[in-house]
Amino acid sequence: MAEVLILGVDPGLNRCGWGLVVRDGARLSHVAHGVIAPRKQQQLASRLHDVFAGLCEVIARYAPHEAAVEETFVNANARAALALGQARGVALAAAAQSGLTVAEYAPATIKKAIVGSGGADKTQIAFMVRRLLPTAGDVTADAADALGVALCHAAHGNLSRRLA
Amino acid sequence: MAEVLILGVDPGLNRCGWGLVVRDGARLSHVAHGVIAPRKQQQLASRLHDVFAGLCEVIARYAPHEAAVEETFVNANARAALALGQARGVALAAAAQSGLTVAEYAPATIKKAIVGSGGADKTQIAFMVRRLLPTAGDVTADAADALGVALCHAAHGNLSRRLA
Repeated sequence: MAEVLILGVDPGLNRCGWGLVVRDGARLSHVAHGVIAPRKQQQLASRLHDVFAGLCEVIARYAPHEAAVEETFVNANARAALALGQARGVALAAAAQSGLTVAEYAPATIKKAIVGSGGADKTQIAFMVRRLLPTAGDVTADAADALGVALCHAAHGNLSRRLA
Repeated sequence: MAEVLILGVDPGLNRCGWGLVVRDGARLSHVAHGVIAPRKQQQLASRLHDVFAGLCEVIARYAPHEAAVEETFVNANARAALALGQARGVALAAAAQSGLTVAEYAPATIKKAIVGSGGADKTQIAFMVRRLLPTAGDVTADAADALGVALCHAAHGNLSRRLA
């Protein structure tokens, strides 16, 4: 029972990416990934609830052991930070609802874990995620980011409880 | 069946205020209010989930017909906007989970509805909320803000469906 199933989430109100990776000893493999895309015509509250409910469904279906999200880079745009915060809040609450602890990783830590350099750009991340998880098939940018966070957690996370 | 039960929410990660007001024709009365205060020692995700679960419990217990929150004033502080966004996201999702529509009101609209002037300060709001809802008793600042939003919705909201 050394397998650890890790959920990575890339929160977003328009497109919330999720990805599941299993770590078995040193071996990492792809399990599933997807994107939750609430209909834009809906009220803000309904769109946020779609993200929440979608992630709860993913968690109920796959029963991951651990979860990880990217730490949010807070730039000068407060309006964008508020919007991202709203989506991020429901993603974190969905994980906590299932009793999952949620690890947070700085963007540079994720890049370093995947590409080997903290300064890598998004296309390099997506390229390396596809290389590291060849069975993942066609992965969109949002899902690639989510799988990247999951891979980072697999490499860096404190998995000792389960791997012991 | 002209009674409309309105839930007002003042989202916050440390203290999330909520207040319930009933409108029966032109008469407004206090029903209940409270504050959800997640333990600070917890992980961010758990605290956000406490806010979500606490509001779901309030909604399940009182079964409000409508909900309202204050529109967020986005100032220059992106870090604060992200934190508030996270709490606001789970509050909106909790309302939507129960099928409630959530009205949003600008701070000036709320002040104008309660005090008669868009430039009123927070202590004036709290004072008038206590005046308008004398049976509310002792109301903390967070709960007073939440009751204020509910009162604003009672005055301004499109309640025609239920009041017809």
